[in-house]
Amino acid sequence: MPRIDINSVPERKGSGYPDPFRAAYGNRVKQRLGDAAGLTQFGVNLTRIAPGTGTALRHWHEKEDEFVYVVEGELVLVEDEGETVLRAGDAAGFKAGVANGHCFVNRSDTDAVVLEVGTRAPTERAHYPDVDLAVVKDETGFHWLHKSGEPYA
Amino acid sequence: MPRIDINSVPERKGSGYPDPFRAAYGNRVKQRLGDAAGLTQFGVNLTRIAPGTGTALRHWHEKEDEFVYVVEGELVLVEDEGETVLRAGDAAGFKAGVANGHCFVNRSDTDAVVLEVGTRAPTERAHYPDVDLAVVKDETGFHWLHKSGEPYA
Repeated sequence: MPRIDINSVPERKGSGYPDPFRAAYGNRVKQRLGDAAGLTQFGVNLTRIAPGTGTALRHWHEKEDEFVYVVEGELVLVEDEGETVLRAGDAAGFKAGVANGHCFVNRSDTDAVVLEVGTRAPTERAHYPDVDLAVVKDETGFHWLHKSGEPYA
Repeated sequence: MPRIDINSVPERKGSGYPDPFRAAYGNRVKQRLGDAAGLTQFGVNLTRIAPGTGTALRHWHEKEDEFVYVVEGELVLVEDEGETVLRAGDAAGFKAGVANGHCFVNRSDTDAVVLEVGTRAPTERAHYPDVDLAVVKDETGFHWLHKSGEPYA
């Protein structure tokens, strides 16, 4: 049925980043609501971010639009133009191809919850301006790369 | 900047349905958050639904995935399998091409607010199983049709 039983959607804790980036995202929990409803054209994650962690490393996508809505708590949006506090009911959008790395960091003392929506392009490349990291998606999956193009071990 | 100033996003009241369907949706107010951030691959509406009205006529899309998250209040999801109450924090998804007409009706005595996400396919057809209506989107815009294919005046 179309209603999504959120309590039954698996919680995916941590991140798929290669070391040494993975450790900082151990307290980030994502539930893939879009997948739970069988959606394929865009993903929708309900993501809980503990104090001291963030949604992601600062990044931008070449092909995929992104949208974030704050459901609960308070987060700091970090991007090229600076830092902006977002609270429950606030939203932000990131057009594909705009080279403005962004992420949300929880500097409060309680959990924050966001809905994250992103297009699912068949192939994609995302850039991480602050660290030696890029990711490529192709028909075989995700590949984490150094900026040189060398794969992470 | 990526943060969306929701207070400055225009409120679009009512619907684009042809008569006689338009009248029932006069108390539905949509803010196009995705457009406000320059997103084009999917739309995101923040939609306020007054008591006695609904998100839409019951419909389904041939090509566009849809996702709805209830931000505030209580709505009844109406679809082929029956009726389901959704409250703040509940969500539903509708895979493109699944011929299960759906809509959300506010039978409570306070406003309800939802986030609606839908892919933007270049061409589309949506079906309204309960009424003599269909809509086609092509490169020239939206066209409301009778089930016979005759356009509405």
